[in-house]
Amino acid sequence: MPTYKAPVREMQFILHELLSVQNYSNLPGFSDASEDLIDQVLDGGAKFAEDILFPLNKVGDREGCTRNDDASVTTPTGFKDAYSALVEAEWLSLSADPKYGGQGLPAVLNLALNEMQSSANMAFSMYPGLTHGAYQALLAGGSEEQKETYVTRMINGGWSGTMNLTEPQCGTDLGLIKTKAVPQDDGSYKITGQKIWISGGEQDLSENIIHLVLARIEGAPEGIKGISLFVVPKYMVKNDGSLGERNALECGGLEEKMGIHGNATCVMNYDGATGWLVGEEHKGMRTMFVMMNEARLGVGLQGLAQAEIAYQNAADFARDRLQSRALSGPAAPEKPADPIIVHPDVRRMLMDSRAFIEGARAFLFWTALQGDLQHKSPDEKVKEKAQDYMALMTPVLKGFLTDIGFKTTSECLQLHGGIGYTEEMGVEQYMRDARIAMIYEGTNGIQALDLVGRKLAANGGRAIFTFFGEMDDFLGEHSDDEDMKPYLDALKTARDQLQDATTWLMQNGLSNFNNAAAASTDFMHLFGYTAIAYMWAKMAKHALEKKDSGDPYYANKLKTATYFIERVLPKAGAHLAALKTGADSMMALDAEAF
Amino acid sequence: MPTYKAPVREMQFILHELLSVQNYSNLPGFSDASEDLIDQVLDGGAKFAEDILFPLNKVGDREGCTRNDDASVTTPTGFKDAYSALVEAEWLSLSADPKYGGQGLPAVLNLALNEMQSSANMAFSMYPGLTHGAYQALLAGGSEEQKETYVTRMINGGWSGTMNLTEPQCGTDLGLIKTKAVPQDDGSYKITGQKIWISGGEQDLSENIIHLVLARIEGAPEGIKGISLFVVPKYMVKNDGSLGERNALECGGLEEKMGIHGNATCVMNYDGATGWLVGEEHKGMRTMFVMMNEARLGVGLQGLAQAEIAYQNAADFARDRLQSRALSGPAAPEKPADPIIVHPDVRRMLMDSRAFIEGARAFLFWTALQGDLQHKSPDEKVKEKAQDYMALMTPVLKGFLTDIGFKTTSECLQLHGGIGYTEEMGVEQYMRDARIAMIYEGTNGIQALDLVGRKLAANGGRAIFTFFGEMDDFLGEHSDDEDMKPYLDALKTARDQLQDATTWLMQNGLSNFNNAAAASTDFMHLFGYTAIAYMWAKMAKHALEKKDSGDPYYANKLKTATYFIERVLPKAGAHLAALKTGADSMMALDAEAF
Repeated sequence: MPTYKAPVREMQFILHELLSVQNYSNLPGFSDASEDLIDQVLDGGAKFAEDILFPLNKVGDREGCTRNDDASVTTPTGFKDAYSALVEAEWLSLSADPKYGGQGLPAVLNLALNEMQSSANMAFSMYPGLTHGAYQALLAGGSEEQKETYVTRMINGGWSGTMNLTEPQCGTDLGLIKTKAVPQDDGSYKITGQKIWISGGEQDLSENIIHLVLARIEGAPEGIKGISLFVVPKYMVKNDGSLGERNALECGGLEEKMGIHGNATCVMNYDGATGWLVGEEHKGMRTMFVMMNEARLGVGLQGLAQAEIAYQNAADFARDRLQSRALSGPAAPEKPADPIIVHPDVRRMLMDSRAFIEGARAFLFWTALQGDLQHKSPDEKVKEKAQDYMALMTPVLKGFLTDIGFKTTSECLQLHGGIGYTEEMGVEQYMRDARIAMIYEGTNGIQALDLVGRKLAANGGRAIFTFFGEMDDFLGEHSDDEDMKPYLDALKTARDQLQDATTWLMQNGLSNFNNAAAASTDFMHLFGYTAIAYMWAKMAKHALEKKDSGDPYYANKLKTATYFIERVLPKAGAHLAALKTGADSMMALDAEAF
Repeated sequence: MPTYKAPVREMQFILHELLSVQNYSNLPGFSDASEDLIDQVLDGGAKFAEDILFPLNKVGDREGCTRNDDASVTTPTGFKDAYSALVEAEWLSLSADPKYGGQGLPAVLNLALNEMQSSANMAFSMYPGLTHGAYQALLAGGSEEQKETYVTRMINGGWSGTMNLTEPQCGTDLGLIKTKAVPQDDGSYKITGQKIWISGGEQDLSENIIHLVLARIEGAPEGIKGISLFVVPKYMVKNDGSLGERNALECGGLEEKMGIHGNATCVMNYDGATGWLVGEEHKGMRTMFVMMNEARLGVGLQGLAQAEIAYQNAADFARDRLQSRALSGPAAPEKPADPIIVHPDVRRMLMDSRAFIEGARAFLFWTALQGDLQHKSPDEKVKEKAQDYMALMTPVLKGFLTDIGFKTTSECLQLHGGIGYTEEMGVEQYMRDARIAMIYEGTNGIQALDLVGRKLAANGGRAIFTFFGEMDDFLGEHSDDEDMKPYLDALKTARDQLQDATTWLMQNGLSNFNNAAAASTDFMHLFGYTAIAYMWAKMAKHALEKKDSGDPYYANKLKTATYFIERVLPKAGAHLAALKTGADSMMALDAEAF
């Protein structure tokens, strides 16, 4: 039987020790976030994820969603009640802006709850996840009236939100969008066109669905510079905020997907639907990018979250399943065979998973704290650095955490042997669900291009040089600490490889853009390993401080750090070697030769 | 729409040029295998796979198999007709022993057809695939009467065969088998027990199903040394070979799996079923290993085959899908965007796939030819070397080709973006189907242990030293050829890394078996990359000979070889570095800490 237990202790270690969230009490909302309150929130969130969401995970996968003849969509059994409970418990408004009804707690704390919800039921958690992205876009680009009308009702999930970008002829290249918007005398627009792969485009969970739709105003410039953003509610909203008549839009069908069956992936048909411009004409991409950056962090989290639940179940299985004897002699002579956790190759799969998950979680939470600092710090230098880091790290978190997160789910499936391939153990669902995270909100190839083509070069490379400087400071600060030596040596190697790659890109990517693009995915992975090596070095420092505490937690942290250095980090060098060969061999064949 | 076109030219290159099958005309069966005949067989096999099997691939996935109330199993629509056509066309007896009705052609040619069938419809191809393994076991261990009775009727698929190993409490550790065999006065045994995950255990395709079942004779020694092999037909066979009454066995249920839905994965209940001993009492594992080695080569092939069809569809998609402009300027200015094949990161996915597939196919076919030599060569030295190679390479082919084959299907899915995650493009099925190949016939972890713990050490390491010697001879022979230099340099590096790892294993794996086991998966991958580097060097030599032929095929082969060296082979070094760190960090945590 699959199980899920929220990794509360791991989250406490990161929030209380690694990030010392309590030290930021000068920031709005952080003063409320005492250690006690954080622990209470984590415990409450854990209970909700474990008891309410997780039991519906398999149900959602097996039942999927149904589009009815009247174009309504029915979500799996139990989803509606769970959603109501989620709204009622006000979990969704935890870190939202108090001005619009939120509780204003740190976003990094909210992220912890998001991880739990995503592990427990990824398909379900996407409904509120998209809502969060949608209202962030409205907060970033909408009018005060739009914020009052929509955001206040979306913050707790009573109304939900969606992102409508993709059309059949365009996913990555949004300049090809055909959906059109015709201005009306009353200041609204009539929106007409077809959008596809709209997660939660129709469902039976929320009272209203607020669609954010990219479209082209009649006569707009060609390409990406003629795209505007519109807010298009499912039900029109009256002046008093109550629901009016149905808008001219409907779900035309659901996609048959490999996974996330519990989430309705809709074809959305807009047939002269009434919408309102968000922000300026033709500047829709700017606001959409706010939403996408936000969403991308959340997708990176999904990679981590599915890895976590797959790992937990693999560890349970490895302790329970009896098969063969340990090479060093029977470990459980009273049983017919030893639990498979005694076998090194089984350990390899568990340790690979664990070293990734703990490092990735630290990296993700550390970056999310930058998000809090970016929005809340009174210090302009801190804000700038935080903003730089958010921009730089987001594509790495999205691409690297979903690539390795998926690989981890596959490795945890592997550990189960044949039964892992059947629905019985749940792990094959985690793998199928995790697979989408490498694709949506910009494929991982697009993340790598964003990193190499945009984020690296921004402000003359300020962000990555700041990051190198931060790592150098850390290396310098602890250079006298003998216990830190193995972790620092590993970090130094990784950091130097990343610097080498960055220099190579600067020397070879500008004269030939194909070199930069050819290097991009390897660079993103090299960056990911380096960032996680930095996190492991930081975690090792905190663990060393407590190594005499008698709590095995800290000794285990150090052992896992060593495993990461010895067994995982060598991959970084392979990425460096590959990327420095340039684009020639990659581009050598004619298209017809494939 | 998904498509499949058998890679006939690639197979011709390997059979006619790389392996020069025509040079072995002194061997039985090979004299019939002229270039013309081989080409005819490949063309006919291609047509069958493309026109008959491939159209049923998606049908099989969507419909799956059904167990009826009478315990019979219905395969997907069209499977029965396709199976009859397969039997009628005598595709299955191509390389089988003429003594039992086979056509006696080289096994390596048969392998080419198997690849096509597996690409076109993996779930379907497993039915005859398992039959092949089963009659090989009977040929290896059965009595002459058993061969006459069963093998002659299995060779063309009229009767099918299965392998019954796994029970709920044991997969890898077959010493835990509980199924019991009670001797009867007439020399038969009554078999009672439950077997699980029996592929094709029940179906509506063949007239009879011949189950090979591992069981323990009453009073047999404990563990693996008390396991015997039995042949247990679904229908009893009369003296004249006609079918008698139904045996006491039935399908108790079907597994719900992630993929290969068209193949019936059965729970098989034996309730005093009549069976006959194959070979000696308590020596069942010996014969079963013959069957498993055979089957493992076929599973490695599945990894390659699914990668091939995924690659073909990814390449088509990359040529058709218009999205964004080439970084070097518009490639198709008359279109709204360029085909995505212009983008380096898309090329990366295609070239990764291609470099693996072409190298892996060469490795697999080269090994399969060793199988022919092992059975047919009149030269004892050749036989010995061929047998050594078959033993050594089989776990590498099974483990490495399925690991990287699966990864390739995932990369080809990724190339499609969102639509790759839907059932529309077919590629998500190829990925789900490919996933099982890493697990069955011994998980890839078990393959790695077999390689490191058994195959490396056999006969004092004779097999791997012969392989090092062969690579050294090749390096020496071509050392004056300037054109060969890049391919030889790469091979030399890979070869030296493999030697380094082998030496490390000898020095550290014997004193501490955990070191060997901890190294095993990395060693298997390092071995795989090295073997494929050898294949690429050999293919480069043949391509260089024809580089002035005007046929772009050879120039493309050289370009792909360069890509393999530059972009793929660096991974080998990471495996070496990881494995040399030993078992300590892998084994450091207590079981309870996970």
